Amino acid sequence: MIRIAVDGMGGDRAPRAVVDGTVQAAHLLNEVEIILVGRKDRLSKELSRFHPLPKNLKLHDAPEVIGMGESPAISVRRKPDSSICQMVELAKAKQVNAIISAGNTGAMVVAASLGLGLLEGIERPGIAILLPSLNGLTLLIDVGANIDSKPEHLLQYGLMGSVVMRRVVGRKNPSVGLLNVGEEESKGTDFHRQAFKLLEESSLNFIGNMEGREIYTGKCDVIVCDGFVGNVVLKVSEGMALAIRELQVREMKRTLLNKLGAVLLLPAFKRLKKQMDYTEYGGAPLLGIDGVCFISHGSSNAKAIRNAIRAAATFVAHEVNQQIVAATHQMARQKVH
Amino acid sequence: MIRIAVDGMGGDRAPRAVVDGTVQAAHLLNEVEIILVGRKDRLSKELSRFHPLPKNLKLHDAPEVIGMGESPAISVRRKPDSSICQMVELAKAKQVNAIISAGNTGAMVVAASLGLGLLEGIERPGIAILLPSLNGLTLLIDVGANIDSKPEHLLQYGLMGSVVMRRVVGRKNPSVGLLNVGEEESKGTDFHRQAFKLLEESSLNFIGNMEGREIYTGKCDVIVCDGFVGNVVLKVSEGMALAIRELQVREMKRTLLNKLGAVLLLPAFKRLKKQMDYTEYGGAPLLGIDGVCFISHGSSNAKAIRNAIRAAATFVAHEVNQQIVAATHQMARQKVH
Repeated sequence: MIRIAVDGMGGDRAPRAVVDGTVQAAHLLNEVEIILVGRKDRLSKELSRFHPLPKNLKLHDAPEVIGMGESPAISVRRKPDSSICQMVELAKAKQVNAIISAGNTGAMVVAASLGLGLLEGIERPGIAILLPSLNGLTLLIDVGANIDSKPEHLLQYGLMGSVVMRRVVGRKNPSVGLLNVGEEESKGTDFHRQAFKLLEESSLNFIGNMEGREIYTGKCDVIVCDGFVGNVVLKVSEGMALAIRELQVREMKRTLLNKLGAVLLLPAFKRLKKQMDYTEYGGAPLLGIDGVCFISHGSSNAKAIRNAIRAAATFVAHEVNQQIVAATHQMARQKVH
Repeated sequence: MIRIAVDGMGGDRAPRAVVDGTVQAAHLLNEVEIILVGRKDRLSKELSRFHPLPKNLKLHDAPEVIGMGESPAISVRRKPDSSICQMVELAKAKQVNAIISAGNTGAMVVAASLGLGLLEGIERPGIAILLPSLNGLTLLIDVGANIDSKPEHLLQYGLMGSVVMRRVVGRKNPSVGLLNVGEEESKGTDFHRQAFKLLEESSLNFIGNMEGREIYTGKCDVIVCDGFVGNVVLKVSEGMALAIRELQVREMKRTLLNKLGAVLLLPAFKRLKKQMDYTEYGGAPLLGIDGVCFISHGSSNAKAIRNAIRAAATFVAHEVNQQIVAATHQMARQKVH
């Protein structure tokens, strides 16, 4: 049985949305046991809205909470009884196979890195996100775990992203691109030119530099970048999608004919929203950690939490981490020969 | 009279789209003289489609062309008779007040920096772009002139961007933000923390770190970033807008009712497209150069070129560069006291 710990206190809508999503997931995924971690009193109160409670849902008390704005390094050290640190302890003791939080991302990265360690051959963890593109899904890594990357980290991101696209998304021989300001090999700073060289000499299916616009055209399966740029890309995308939707709503309301047109197109807009909706993919895996960690958006609703739990279960079942380690071994061997 | 040189050979649709846009602008802006720079034979042939030709449109021969993929530094040195280098020569000789190209951006940056020099107090040029937001316009600088910035450059971008928002867009006391991965002062790398400090201690209306999503919410008038990140942001935005439009078109065609709804909403979609359309703003000023330089998108159509010419004329008329120099003096004085 797969066991997954969920941070009951993490996220802007916690604990309510997290509890709701967890209950939904427990009903949906009979083969998974879910451990809600957080303040027992708060979580019990939220859970009292549901009866009978699904049998595969447990509580684990964690009296402390790391707030969204707290310094990751300091809070992880000072709050060993926080939900995030307690989840990491459960994973360390092999009592759970995966942990999920919609709370303080930096604290998750620090706690998981320190508590669980990194996979063999991986020097820095990276957050990978699946973005909708014209051509299915594109995986962007890193979107914020490591904002001061070295070229080697980008190579490792390419390797880990390829494993995810192959094992989880089912893409054969996934293509890898380097986010850059132009296609030519000479583009970017020294950092990008060094990363280009490492990727090109590797056994990955590296297809060259990718400009920002290729993230949404789906020209490439995996796009690697340093965590600062990736984080900005993710948030710009979020902001732009919201702005376009808001401007559209304003336009739709301008005249009676517009309103009629909007009503006719309601199903189309709903489908479109679903295609663009990050909550469909639930959470983003924090790759490179010796353990399965998922990070959900701070504003996650119940559906996002439910989908993150399902995604984490898929990761465990597909043995993604074992595959990453096997791939790093293979890459190391090819380097020697 | 304001004189503006336009690169007749620059851009994916040159020379035709450039010639069309130039003729349109010449008819529209009687007080501006436009000098089309490029291969006389090619441009004359394109111009032969129009008669009579507007009197305020002139030709200036430049037999060489710098291609879109050529190395900026090498091509500028080797092709002194290219349209880009010839435009810079015209500006240097004070024969024109502004120059515009939809061609090789890097070559424009190098040729203008070397040929015209930088404004007093400015160490690096920056490309500023006006982006549509929920709250009017947001200016993002730099989107690709300088991909290896120092913190001081970001301060100078903030100063130049503020002048543009005040003088050209009419924003009073423009707010300035630093693009970062979080709001807290401690966020980002050393580079960002140093830039934060410089901006905070300056006389600019600095309102702190801005996450990527704030570019489109319009929370801030001017957002500064290094040219690598800015370029990625710009191209991600472009790609995302195209992808959303494409996905919408697919949805609209799915059923008869959807098609009917789409027809009713056609005017709304047109208005929306106009709001999101970068060609409405024409070109992006290359700020910091001792001369007015505008860079248009490589895929510029006639309308984009026409609007870029109008925007450049506005810059000249509003004496933006003189205001930037005055602002740097003022900032230097405040530093002394």
